[in-house]
Amino acid sequence: MAQFSGLSAVLLNCSLVHEAKDSHTRLLLNRVKGIMSTEGVDVEMIHMLEHRIGFGMVPDTTKIGDEVDDWPAIHAKVMAADILVIGTPIWLGVKSSVASLAIERLYAYSGEKNEHGQYLYYGKTGGCVVTGNEDGVKACSMETLYALSHIGYTIPPQADCGWLGEIGPGPSYGDEVDGVRAGFDSEFTNKNATIMTWNLMHTAKMLKDQGGFPVGGNVADTWREFTNAADQDPDAD
Amino acid sequence: MAQFSGLSAVLLNCSLVHEAKDSHTRLLLNRVKGIMSTEGVDVEMIHMLEHRIGFGMVPDTTKIGDEVDDWPAIHAKVMAADILVIGTPIWLGVKSSVASLAIERLYAYSGEKNEHGQYLYYGKTGGCVVTGNEDGVKACSMETLYALSHIGYTIPPQADCGWLGEIGPGPSYGDEVDGVRAGFDSEFTNKNATIMTWNLMHTAKMLKDQGGFPVGGNVADTWREFTNAADQDPDAD
Amino acid sequence: MAQFSGLSAVLLNCSLVHEAKDSHTRLLLNRVKGIMSTEGVDVEMIHMLEHRIGFGMVPDTTKIGDEVDDWPAIHAKVMAADILVIGTPIWLGVKSSVASLAIERLYAYSGEKNEHGQYLYYGKTGGCVVTGNEDGVKACSMETLYALSHIGYTIPPQADCGWLGEIGPGPSYGDEVDGVRAGFDSEFTNKNATIMTWNLMHTAKMLKDQGGFPVGGNVADTWREFTNAADQDPDAD
Amino acid sequence: MAQFSGLSAVLLNCSLVHEAKDSHTRLLLNRVKGIMSTEGVDVEMIHMLEHRIGFGMVPDTTKIGDEVDDWPAIHAKVMAADILVIGTPIWLGVKSSVASLAIERLYAYSGEKNEHGQYLYYGKTGGCVVTGNEDGVKACSMETLYALSHIGYTIPPQADCGWLGEIGPGPSYGDEVDGVRAGFDSEFTNKNATIMTWNLMHTAKMLKDQGGFPVGGNVADTWREFTNAADQDPDAD
Repeated sequence: MAQFSGLSAVLLNCSLVHEAKDSHTRLLLNRVKGIMSTEGVDVEMIHMLEHRIGFGMVPDTTKIGDEVDDWPAIHAKVMAADILVIGTPIWLGVKSSVASLAIERLYAYSGEKNEHGQYLYYGKTGGCVVTGNEDGVKACSMETLYALSHIGYTIPPQADCGWLGEIGPGPSYGDEVDGVRAGFDSEFTNKNATIMTWNLMHTAKMLKDQGGFPVGGNVADTWREFTNAADQDPDAD
Repeated sequence: MAQFSGLSAVLLNCSLVHEAKDSHTRLLLNRVKGIMSTEGVDVEMIHMLEHRIGFGMVPDTTKIGDEVDDWPAIHAKVMAADILVIGTPIWLGVKSSVASLAIERLYAYSGEKNEHGQYLYYGKTGGCVVTGNEDGVKACSMETLYALSHIGYTIPPQADCGWLGEIGPGPSYGDEVDGVRAGFDSEFTNKNATIMTWNLMHTAKMLKDQGGFPVGGNVADTWREFTNAADQDPDAD
Repeated sequence: MAQFSGLSAVLLNCSLVHEAKDSHTRLLLNRVKGIMSTEGVDVEMIHMLEHRIGFGMVPDTTKIGDEVDDWPAIHAKVMAADILVIGTPIWLGVKSSVASLAIERLYAYSGEKNEHGQYLYYGKTGGCVVTGNEDGVKACSMETLYALSHIGYTIPPQADCGWLGEIGPGPSYGDEVDGVRAGFDSEFTNKNATIMTWNLMHTAKMLKDQGGFPVGGNVADTWREFTNAADQDPDAD
Repeated sequence: MAQFSGLSAVLLNCSLVHEAKDSHTRLLLNRVKGIMSTEGVDVEMIHMLEHRIGFGMVPDTTKIGDEVDDWPAIHAKVMAADILVIGTPIWLGVKSSVASLAIERLYAYSGEKNEHGQYLYYGKTGGCVVTGNEDGVKACSMETLYALSHIGYTIPPQADCGWLGEIGPGPSYGDEVDGVRAGFDSEFTNKNATIMTWNLMHTAKMLKDQGGFPVGGNVADTWREFTNAADQDPDAD
């Protein structure tokens, strides 16, 4: 049995293209998916814009007037998965509006708690995949990983990877240039995608093996029953 | 024996004031320190500007002309510790120059590896404490936690905490206003500081109990021997 | 005749609420609008989510399959205006997905040129209004103003304003607390909103009076005909 | 007489290398300097780390215990100049600690006013030059230009330029690779450096010709005497 059997992952592609087949970010996500599948993880990739996702800080936007909202179904998959990877293209140096939308919709459930009383996403781990043709991988990852950490995800070491062309206009990831697919042979991108993926699997397994993120001192309703900040002397020393 | 005995932590105060006693950020770091000490963690707080720290992307700036460089001694303490917390004030919405300097000097060792061949800081966990009188906790945390993750730290859920006054000029954390010390009673800040601290301790213990961050697929020299990105079909599906 | 007669402005409210009347950000934008109107500027506020705006890096998303795309009509108004103010709420420390969407759609026209051959938005000036209940005004402004500058807008001094409550959960701008509307009396917010608005009007007038942003050295097709970077010695001195 | 005679500029190189001659960022700044000089602007480049600059939010750190502080002399030059360009390398995706230090020290004077009562830096214009070997030009520019705008600088369109190599380790700007100096022939970088420089000169001239940034509604002491936010109805419409 593979080392990571029993784990599951959702890869959320927040590309601005309407169909998955046209997305460059999908190509790098596919490599992450390939590693995970080979190692026994049950993976699903979701292309956000093949769904109708409402705007708004509520779990279900049909409650605020939208005719359709596919987010609750996607959210159920995110909740069932141990790993979440957000894939985003870069525009003007930052993550896409669709990535922001995904994060807002995740955050809209943040009043809910898991079975231990911790915030909903405790016990899960998250990463970030970025492609663009110029500049901004780290800026996208920074915002995305911070958001995931803030709502309860554990962030492994080196939890992001990406590809960029040389500065200025140029091919996107996977575009054919003189018979070669841009970026596919990038040692740097392949190494980082590999390390990110293994770190996500290791972290997910570590958390799952012990029944989620450890409980104690990190539950909103009971933090005062533990050694806590309010009881410490700020002027000590 | 306390649950977290055997763990150690360094709290690096990147305040712009020259002496620890004048720092507002130190007051909130002190509360984090208090929780850790009570729970058995061996903690040291270091006030960066009470030391002479050189600029430059080298492990020791006396090698590039500085008369004194206190960083190697601080770095040895960071390396000996399981937990690193960076404390920073906010200026113009972002972390201090001293926090940037600390991160650069940590990064300057990133060519080195730990005993497993992983990047140097694997197996450790990190957090961030921010104070200011107006705006920018999340922006500071975002950059700081991303940098720590990038060099090998595992970032727990909700790995930051902070305090801000109302928008506009006003008291800093701990300043006395009408006989009350600003921020000391903030439920939000105390809850978040508590949760961050416990999450750092839980993560440090989890990692230490299993001998560091799991090895496999995440070592720069051997990633091609594992299921890796270069071997996956980006066009799959 | 008012000092700024003949100028026009679009205020783009990128709130996540579906109807303008429920938006807190709108309340602060209204004050900006009030100043402008009084001073003779022709102002229109547009609530993005009262329109159907497509995703995608194209001028008109009905060309890529959307049934409806209200953006081209909004874009025509932006093009007709001398001033653009983007209003955004803060979620997880950054600007809303709707603000990102607006910026992407502006950027999607960036291949087009104005009558001088400069990028399309040269000669216009832009600002940013942010509200939230906790933290992130500067982080939102930073990304928004940079994007506007990047596509051709001139950014005046102090081109943003905002309001935040104290750290932690609390009222949004304009919420009634003990009979008082939160933030309405904030000296800091009112001063900054005033300064931003006047600086936008001054800059718009200055640019309009001289027929747009000065031409020379800043046209993509002719930069080599001017004193240019390629001809300078990087090793000079 | 050259079009821009009478204008002056300071280029502040915030490289982490101790001597100007070793800086890659300096090479691109030199090209900006070359354009400005040719067009009649009086330019001085300052290499921050060839000076001793203190930490601290005060105009002169010898007043808080430092033996030496070269900042006041540098600040006098910044004050005498119409244009300020901050040059920074990228480390971990963001601007250098030295760039943060320069910005903090500029900000430390922000309580002072110019002869019109406006904040000190009103009437000046600013830009940003970034080099790195991988990723982060826009993230560096975003923070730097926002800071300059916040303290009073006017930011022209496309006020930044930069160079990056392909993703992953590689040459820095100007490093010789197979007999070619990396980046020197980049059409994108040279075009953007040219456009930025001309836009700074145009903006500086425009502001100088009318005696600084227009006065009215933007003076901290008198904003209430103008049409202002506090007097507008936030609930209008």
